[in-house]
Amino acid sequence: MIPVKAYAAFDAENPLKPYTFERKEVGAHQVQIEILYSGVCHSDIHTAKGEWGPVNYPLVPGHEIVGRIVAVGSEVSKFKVGELAGIGCFVDSCRICPSCQAGEEQFCDEGMTQTYNSVERGTDIPTRGGYSTSIIVDENYTLHVSEKLDLKGVAPLLCAGITTYSPLRYLKVGKGHKVGVLGLGGLGHMAVKFAVSFGAEVTMLSHSPFKEADAKKLGAHHFALTSNPETMESLASSFDFILNTVSAKHDHNAYLNLLKTNGTMIVVGAPPAPAEIPVFTLIMKRRSIIGSLIGGIKETQEMLDYCAEHNITSDVEIIDMAYINEAYERMNKSDVKYRFVIDMASLK
Amino acid sequence: MIPVKAYAAFDAENPLKPYTFERKEVGAHQVQIEILYSGVCHSDIHTAKGEWGPVNYPLVPGHEIVGRIVAVGSEVSKFKVGELAGIGCFVDSCRICPSCQAGEEQFCDEGMTQTYNSVERGTDIPTRGGYSTSIIVDENYTLHVSEKLDLKGVAPLLCAGITTYSPLRYLKVGKGHKVGVLGLGGLGHMAVKFAVSFGAEVTMLSHSPFKEADAKKLGAHHFALTSNPETMESLASSFDFILNTVSAKHDHNAYLNLLKTNGTMIVVGAPPAPAEIPVFTLIMKRRSIIGSLIGGIKETQEMLDYCAEHNITSDVEIIDMAYINEAYERMNKSDVKYRFVIDMASLK
Repeated sequence: MIPVKAYAAFDAENPLKPYTFERKEVGAHQVQIEILYSGVCHSDIHTAKGEWGPVNYPLVPGHEIVGRIVAVGSEVSKFKVGELAGIGCFVDSCRICPSCQAGEEQFCDEGMTQTYNSVERGTDIPTRGGYSTSIIVDENYTLHVSEKLDLKGVAPLLCAGITTYSPLRYLKVGKGHKVGVLGLGGLGHMAVKFAVSFGAEVTMLSHSPFKEADAKKLGAHHFALTSNPETMESLASSFDFILNTVSAKHDHNAYLNLLKTNGTMIVVGAPPAPAEIPVFTLIMKRRSIIGSLIGGIKETQEMLDYCAEHNITSDVEIIDMAYINEAYERMNKSDVKYRFVIDMASLK
Repeated sequence: MIPVKAYAAFDAENPLKPYTFERKEVGAHQVQIEILYSGVCHSDIHTAKGEWGPVNYPLVPGHEIVGRIVAVGSEVSKFKVGELAGIGCFVDSCRICPSCQAGEEQFCDEGMTQTYNSVERGTDIPTRGGYSTSIIVDENYTLHVSEKLDLKGVAPLLCAGITTYSPLRYLKVGKGHKVGVLGLGGLGHMAVKFAVSFGAEVTMLSHSPFKEADAKKLGAHHFALTSNPETMESLASSFDFILNTVSAKHDHNAYLNLLKTNGTMIVVGAPPAPAEIPVFTLIMKRRSIIGSLIGGIKETQEMLDYCAEHNITSDVEIIDMAYINEAYERMNKSDVKYRFVIDMASLK
């Protein structure tokens, strides 16, 4: 067994605290990664607080993981000791359903095995995530990470990055498209970077005027103050796509009205209450709404390679592991540009 | 001026009554159609009752019109006197916006000129619809109707037909697709016929067990009783498309859950209150919802030609003009299989 230092939530109410546990030895098809950086995602908070269903405490969150391979199993062919590697939101799946066969394991018929708060397939061993010193994962669910990029900004690509990259690729967003990005956080700032990189004309939609400078710095061509009714009116029927990253309650219909005929709203943020959609808004201009969920291993690798080639990383604030509870509090106030990333050296 | 007999609503509360008015003489680019049959659409009721916004009374409804050309303007090249012709939901549009240029006049930037309750472009002359003995329309907004089909069943193709044909074509629905049709009325029965004709495997989704025989008669391969929780559970994640024709309040989410990964719900029925959509239902399987609105002239002609070739018509109940108010009452109770069509000879 391999001893691991970690931080865990022990219940829904209290702060995360230090925790030690053991991981099973590296299996024949597995790699062991010494975790260097671990991104902090809103999902970590929702899960830790029990807001997304039952939790198997102690819970070790973290699904934006980068590190270095320190051991490989006897059958491993894709990775070598010393290489960089990444782990995202899932570490296994059934491997035989149509979605798995299509390389879209996030839609696995049996449900993907999540990086934390699942159990290892066929066992009752809980999966434990990236707020820890090392992780052991099947090589087929491990990503190659380039040495070219600043590793600190790579970790959030494993969730925030692929969550925005995937739907933009699925819908072939690019040159000639006007894209609105709603919400400038971990997801939104990556959405701006990718949409700009793919050649689209990108408008940051925000109700905070002070975000204009930041949006422009990220590459957005335009900024629209959504709290101004005249701005909203002038933008009616003007976007081909709106990538909606907002997970707080908001008026979906107000933004659907900004879509052109045949325009599409991509939703990757899930507010707690149902969205209220007057169906006429869709009918009158053949508008659509589509959901999207991270991406499969194949597409995540494609995204990481694209980022290495185009020098795209997440904008991050590096923290020590012990800062995690303050980080959660600040995230709940949207006080981070744009992702906290834990330097796991702080846990050793 | 051309004297016309008609039935009109004079206000939102009272029954329709006989009405006579005059239409302008046939213009150079117009055709005059002696109306033979006029379908009765739920939109007629909503508009007559003032439920869809301001109404210019007296209102002559009717936008499912077939008849015979009795006069053509000097510049008309597409139609000859004596030919059959059809008029659908609109009679004009701006002709220059991108949607009009693309042959999708239903999405005209300036708004299509509707067959009734609009005004003729550039005038204050109200447009008046098919509950009348004749209509005069620009040849470019007039459809060719085959002599091969039973004309009575053709009228509803101009709205109920194209409303269901268009999204199935837009989304390339056909062989290998499992399609659910929700709601067995004017729209739903055409949706079944088209989806079956395009090669899809079609399931009628209904909460009324007595509709099973009818659904099968229309060609549906399967019938699913949606009031049975076990049936709903067994159908989870099983459809590529659901064509939702229901305009009464209903639980969209229950049906979204019947869509496979990447499945799409097409909404053509607009309930009075917003649909409540838990965004997670979309995200977890990359499901989408899309609205659709009738079709352009080009596609409507394609649909009519397709119907002539494949012997597809609407199932109708022929009524006299004087029966219209009873017909409205019965439609409000869904008591019609599946469309009332007025025999305009009854008005002469």
